[in-house]
Amino acid sequence: MKRSLCMVAMAACTLFHSTIMAQEQRPLPTLEDLIPGGETYRFAENIYGLQWWGDLCIRPKEECVVAIDPLSGKENQLFTLEQVNKALKEAGLKPMQHLNNIRTPWAKQFIALLPRAQKYAIYNWSTGQVEMRDDLPKEPAANFDYETDSRNLAYTIGNNLYVNGRRVTDEPNGVVCGQSVHRNEFGISKGTFWSPKGTLLAFYRMDESMVTEYPLVDITARIGEVNAIRYPMAGMTSHKVQVGIYNPATQQTLYLQTGDPTDRYFTNISWSPDEQSLFLIELNRDQNHAKLCQYDATTGTLQHVLYEESHPKYVEPSNPICFLPWDSNLFIYQSQRDGFNHLWLMDLKKLQANTTEVAGKQLTSGDWLVQEVLGFNAKKKEIVFTATKESPLQSNIYKVSVANGKVTRIDNGEGVHHAQLSTSGTYVIDSYSTPDQPRNIELLATTGNKKQQLLKAANPYADFAMPTVETGTIKAADGTTDLYYHLIKPANFDPSKKYPAIVYVYGGPHAQLVNNGWLHGARGWNLYMANLGYIVFSLDNRGSDNRGREFENATFRHLGIEEGKDQVKGAEFLQSLPYVDGNRIGVHGWSFGGHMTTALVLRYPEIFKVGVAGGPVIDWSYYEVMYGERYMDTPQSNPEGYKQTNLKNLAGQLKGHLLIIHDDHDDTCVPQHTLSFMKACIDARTYPDLFIYPGHKHNVMGRDRVHLHEKITRYFQDYL
Amino acid sequence: MKRSLCMVAMAACTLFHSTIMAQEQRPLPTLEDLIPGGETYRFAENIYGLQWWGDLCIRPKEECVVAIDPLSGKENQLFTLEQVNKALKEAGLKPMQHLNNIRTPWAKQFIALLPRAQKYAIYNWSTGQVEMRDDLPKEPAANFDYETDSRNLAYTIGNNLYVNGRRVTDEPNGVVCGQSVHRNEFGISKGTFWSPKGTLLAFYRMDESMVTEYPLVDITARIGEVNAIRYPMAGMTSHKVQVGIYNPATQQTLYLQTGDPTDRYFTNISWSPDEQSLFLIELNRDQNHAKLCQYDATTGTLQHVLYEESHPKYVEPSNPICFLPWDSNLFIYQSQRDGFNHLWLMDLKKLQANTTEVAGKQLTSGDWLVQEVLGFNAKKKEIVFTATKESPLQSNIYKVSVANGKVTRIDNGEGVHHAQLSTSGTYVIDSYSTPDQPRNIELLATTGNKKQQLLKAANPYADFAMPTVETGTIKAADGTTDLYYHLIKPANFDPSKKYPAIVYVYGGPHAQLVNNGWLHGARGWNLYMANLGYIVFSLDNRGSDNRGREFENATFRHLGIEEGKDQVKGAEFLQSLPYVDGNRIGVHGWSFGGHMTTALVLRYPEIFKVGVAGGPVIDWSYYEVMYGERYMDTPQSNPEGYKQTNLKNLAGQLKGHLLIIHDDHDDTCVPQHTLSFMKACIDARTYPDLFIYPGHKHNVMGRDRVHLHEKITRYFQDYL
Repeated sequence: MKRSLCMVAMAACTLFHSTIMAQEQRPLPTLEDLIPGGETYRFAENIYGLQWWGDLCIRPKEECVVAIDPLSGKENQLFTLEQVNKALKEAGLKPMQHLNNIRTPWAKQFIALLPRAQKYAIYNWSTGQVEMRDDLPKEPAANFDYETDSRNLAYTIGNNLYVNGRRVTDEPNGVVCGQSVHRNEFGISKGTFWSPKGTLLAFYRMDESMVTEYPLVDITARIGEVNAIRYPMAGMTSHKVQVGIYNPATQQTLYLQTGDPTDRYFTNISWSPDEQSLFLIELNRDQNHAKLCQYDATTGTLQHVLYEESHPKYVEPSNPICFLPWDSNLFIYQSQRDGFNHLWLMDLKKLQANTTEVAGKQLTSGDWLVQEVLGFNAKKKEIVFTATKESPLQSNIYKVSVANGKVTRIDNGEGVHHAQLSTSGTYVIDSYSTPDQPRNIELLATTGNKKQQLLKAANPYADFAMPTVETGTIKAADGTTDLYYHLIKPANFDPSKKYPAIVYVYGGPHAQLVNNGWLHGARGWNLYMANLGYIVFSLDNRGSDNRGREFENATFRHLGIEEGKDQVKGAEFLQSLPYVDGNRIGVHGWSFGGHMTTALVLRYPEIFKVGVAGGPVIDWSYYEVMYGERYMDTPQSNPEGYKQTNLKNLAGQLKGHLLIIHDDHDDTCVPQHTLSFMKACIDARTYPDLFIYPGHKHNVMGRDRVHLHEKITRYFQDYL
Repeated sequence: MKRSLCMVAMAACTLFHSTIMAQEQRPLPTLEDLIPGGETYRFAENIYGLQWWGDLCIRPKEECVVAIDPLSGKENQLFTLEQVNKALKEAGLKPMQHLNNIRTPWAKQFIALLPRAQKYAIYNWSTGQVEMRDDLPKEPAANFDYETDSRNLAYTIGNNLYVNGRRVTDEPNGVVCGQSVHRNEFGISKGTFWSPKGTLLAFYRMDESMVTEYPLVDITARIGEVNAIRYPMAGMTSHKVQVGIYNPATQQTLYLQTGDPTDRYFTNISWSPDEQSLFLIELNRDQNHAKLCQYDATTGTLQHVLYEESHPKYVEPSNPICFLPWDSNLFIYQSQRDGFNHLWLMDLKKLQANTTEVAGKQLTSGDWLVQEVLGFNAKKKEIVFTATKESPLQSNIYKVSVANGKVTRIDNGEGVHHAQLSTSGTYVIDSYSTPDQPRNIELLATTGNKKQQLLKAANPYADFAMPTVETGTIKAADGTTDLYYHLIKPANFDPSKKYPAIVYVYGGPHAQLVNNGWLHGARGWNLYMANLGYIVFSLDNRGSDNRGREFENATFRHLGIEEGKDQVKGAEFLQSLPYVDGNRIGVHGWSFGGHMTTALVLRYPEIFKVGVAGGPVIDWSYYEVMYGERYMDTPQSNPEGYKQTNLKNLAGQLKGHLLIIHDDHDDTCVPQHTLSFMKACIDARTYPDLFIYPGHKHNVMGRDRVHLHEKITRYFQDYL
C-alpha cells in the first residue's frame, strides 16, 4: 500500500502560500491559541448534543431543541429551554443552562431524559411536565448507569454498588464493585452492564486487597499525605475479578461460578437477547488464549465455552459479542485471526454443539480493519461500522450485507469519520474532518446518497500564519513495511535554510499520530514549534495502530527496540532533506512516547541530540500487569527482554540533553519510573534534567497544559 | 571591630603569584579532587585517634600505640596492633585493622577500650589479655553509651532502651526511648545520660504518636514504599517528652514528675556530682522563657526552679550546667543575657534559697562569645574553653581563673582551634588551621608556653593552580554592622577582565561561612568555580553565627528578609569591583541557603540572574516546630511573618533562571517545600527548573556529591 508524498496546505495558508509578505502580516498563533486549556484556544465549531430520536435527528440549539428530518432537512421545534426550566422550577429542581446534555432514547415517546444535575428527571414535552425519581443518593456517588427500558439506575458510592437507592454490595476497602476492572484494558470502560430489557444487572467485583499499594504523595495537604493506589506491577500478584448479577426485582445477587479467579481476565461482558445468558471472553494471565464463555444468568453456571482463540504472542479481544436484532441465534464476533480485525458471524447453536470447530463465517475481510460496529439496519439485514478500508489513515463508514457479505461505503470516502446510527439503521449522523477541513457534520442515509449538511466548520486558525503539513511514507527498518509520516514546515518556510528538526513520537499500540483528519493529526504544540523554526515530524512506527496484527506484534517481548529502529529511519529521512540540519534533531513524546524519546536519546545519541520525555515508561517491570504482560510477558518469563528494554541499563549512554517530566499523581505510569532513572543516571554519572507537575495524573491537562508546553519549548530552544 | 581587607594567597600560589607561566603549568583541580566523596579528593594530613591518657597523649601509629610526654615530646610504645589482634583471636573476637578507634579513658590503668566491632572488650597491655563482656545484644542495636566508671552499657533496639542486656522500656511504635529528642535542637545530640559514677542513667522518652507523619517514598523498592517520619510542622501538634531515670542495680525506672509535658521542652540534662539530683533546662513552646530545674533523682520530684531567663524574642540554652570539680556547690551556667554567650559562676545553695535573685557572678564578658567549655584545671582552679575573643572569625583556646576572672589565651592567637584537655587540665591537644595552613597539631601546656608539634600538614592542593581567597568587611543594610566576606579569584586572575560572580550563601543561625581557618572557609566547589572563571563570594549576613544575640535575632519573625538585604549589600559591593560583571551575578546555597537563594532570585531579580537552591525552606509553616517556632513563632501568632517569608507568594516574580534541587528522603526540610513551590510557579506561569536526588537526605553526600556539583556547575555555565 504505497502512497505518494502529498502536500496538504492548510486552508488558511493556501490563500497566501506564494505571498510571504501577506503571511508576515498575519500573527503567529501562541501556545494559548494552540493548546487545549489555553486562554484563547481555538476550538473548531461543533454542534453539541446531536443524537437520534428514532429516525429524527435531535439538535439542541441555543434556546430550544429541534428535530430534523434527515430526508428533507426540515426542522421542527420540540421544546424550549424556557419550557424545561419552568417545569424544573415547579418540580423544585435546578434550572439548566443549555439543552446539550438531554437524551432522547425513547424513539416513540415525547419525553427526554434530563442530566444528572437535574436528577435524571424526565421531561415530557407534550404535557410540559417533569417526572422526578425519588431514589437518588444523597452521598457523593459516581458511575451512574441509567437503563432506558426499565428506568433502573445503577451507581457506586465509595467502593460499593447501588441500584435504585438500594445497596447491592457491602464490601470492605480493597474490594471494588460496579467499576471498571483490569485497568481499563480489553476495551473495558465501565463496571455495570444492564441486560437488554434492563431487568438484570451484571457487574464487576474486583478484590485488589492482595495488590501492592503504590504511594502517590499529595503535597497540597497541610502536611504531605499519601494517596495510595493498588498497582499490580508486571510479574507481581494481581487482583481477582468476579462477575455478579443483580436482580432489582428480587434484590438477589449471584456470582458467576468461574472457579478461582486468580490470574484470569473476565472481559467483554454482554447479554443474550432473552436475558437468560451472560457472555464474556476469558483470558489467561499470559493473554495468549481467549475463551468465549456462556454463563446461565439465573444460576451462574458455565453453560458453554463457545469459541477459543490463541496466538503464540497474544490475543486481545476488545469487543463484546453482539446478536443480530433479527436472529437471536447469530452474533457478531470481532477477531484478528486473519491478521486484521474483522467481523465474523457466529452461530450460537452450532458453537454450543462443538467448541473446537469454527462455527462461523467471515463477514468482512481484507488488509484493513473494522474499527467500530455502529449498529444494524434490521430491515435490510445490514451491519453498519467504521473501518480503514480506504486507507490506514482514514476511518470511513460502511455497511455490510449479512446475506452476501457485500461491503458498501456510506460516506464520502475521505478523512476521519465518527458516526451515530439512527434507531432503524437508516441514517447516520456523520461528523468528520479532512486535512483541510476541521469538521463537517452531515446526516447521511445508509441506503443511498441522500445527505443534509448541518455544519461546515470554519478554520479556527484562519487569521493566523500557519505552518503546512505534508504526509508520505518511508520504509520501516524491516525494509518492506510502509510507514506513514507527517512533516510540518513553518509558515514562512524558506527551502534554502537549514532547519533543526523535532520528532514527535508515540510509537506504542493503539495509537496513531498520522491520519487524514484535520491537519493530518498535527498537534497544536507541533504547529507552534514549526512556526518557531523547526521542522516537526511524526512517524507511526511498527507497533502502532490501524495496521493489523503483525504490524503491531512485531514488538512483542522487546518493546521499543523495533519501534526505535523505525524512528531512526524517520530521522535518516529527515537528514536526507536539503532544508533539515541533520545534526540538530530533537525528540519529544509522552507515556510510551516518553519511553521512545528516552530510548532514542540513549540508544542513538549521534542522531537525537535533545529529548523531552513526559511520563515515560523506564522499566517495564514497573508497569502494570494487564498492558505490560500482554506485550512483554513477565519479568520472570522474559528476563532478557526486560533487561534489554530497561532504560536504567542505558543511563550511562546519555550524551545529549534529556529532560524528563513526570506528574506526581501519575497512576498510569508511576513516578518511580522517572525517579529511578534519575538515580541510575546519577550512579552512571550522566546528567538528565527533570521536572515534576504536582497534582496531575498521566498527563498535564487543563490550564497547566500551556505551562507544560512552554516548558518543553524552552528546553528545545535552550539546547537544540 | 572593623577589619581591613586582607589578601591571603594560598601557600601553593604564593610561590607563583607573579608568574602566570608557572601557574599555567599546573593543572586545575577537578571536582573529584575538591569535593568530599570525589575519587581523588584531597584530605589534609591528620593524626587519627589522638587523645589523653591522664596527662600523656595517646597516639595510634600504623602498627602500634605510643604515649607522648607533652613536656619532652618523648614517645613510649604501649602496645602493638599485632599484640591486640593476638589477644582478640584468643578471645574469639574480630581482629582490628588499625588502632585509631581505641579509647584510653582510664588514666591510672593500663587498659584500653576497644570499639564496638570488638564488642567493647578491654585490652590490658600489661597482661596482653582481652577482657570480654557477655551482655551485648544480638539484635541490631544503636545509640551505644558506654560508661567508663561503672562499665555500664546503654543502647537502643528499635524504639526501646536497654542496659547491660536488659530491656529498660517496653513502648509501642510512636514512643521512642533513649534517643535524641526535640529534633536535636537546644544542643541535644543523644538520649542517654550516665550519672558521674555511672550508677544511674537518665534518658529521654518521647511520645510522638500524636505527630503527623510525612511520607517519604523509597523508589528503590520493587514497588515504591513509604518511609513515614513523624514530623511536627510549625503550629501543629508536637511530641511529648519525659525524662526517665534507670537504676541498673535495682532495675527500677522512675520518671521525673514534670506534670503534663505538652508543649514543653526538656533540655540540657546534667547530674549533680553526688548523683542525687538531675538538672535540666525547661523551655515553654514559645521558647522565650527558660527555667533551670533541679529534680530529686531518687523520687523524681521537682526540688527547685533555680534560675529563670526570658527574652522578648527567644532564649536558646544549649549547654548543660557543669559543676566545678573542686566545689560541688558551684557550677558554670552559660548565658547570652548580656548579648554574648558567656560563663556565669552560679551558687547552688543561694539559688535554692531565692530563685528570683541572680545568685551568680559573670566570669567572662565582652563583645565576644564562649564557644565550648573544654574542662577544668582543678589544681589551678581554672576553666579552659574556646572563644571568639581574638576575632569573630576565629576560635582560640583560653583559660579563666575562677578566683579573679582573668582570661589568658593558651594558643597562638591565630586561626580556628579545636582542643582536647588532659585529665588534670594541664595540657591540650590543639588542632588548628589558618588561612594558609590546612592543619597543625600541637601539644600545649595550659600553664605556659611549652609546646610539642605533632603535625604540620602539607597543602593538599600544592600541585594545582589554585584560586586566591581574600576577606574583608562591608556594612550591613542597617548601615552600622560590619559583615565579613570572603572573595575567591581564579588562579589566572586578570584584573582587566570582567568576571561573572557567584554568591555562595547560607545566612541562617548557627553557621558561619567566613573564618580565619584553612582558605578562610572556602569550599571546594567555590574554588572550582573560581577557576572556571567566576568571582565567588560569601558574606555572613546578620542572623549568622558567632556575632552575638542581637546580630542573630535581628531576623526574628521574618526570616530571610534582613538577611536578604545584607546579601544585596554584598552584591552591590561585587558590582563596585572593576573586575566583576555586575549584570552577571548568580547565587547558590543549600537548606537555609536554599531559602536565601530562592528568595534573592525572587526578590531581587535585577541583581540575581541565576540561582541554584538546594533543599530549600520555601514556607516556614512546613518546617519543624523546634527550630521554626524559635525564629518565626507559630503561623497562628505570626501570620504576617509567615506570609511575607512564604516564597510561594513570590513565585510570580521569577524572572531569571532558578534550579531547585531536593533530596527525596530529606527528613529535615521535606520535599513538600520544593514541590509546592513548583506548583506555585506553575500556577503563576513562571518557569523554575528542578532536580531530585533519590535516596539522599538533607544533602547529597558521598560519591553522588560530585555529581551534584557537576549538575550545579552546568546550570551556571548554561545560564550565567
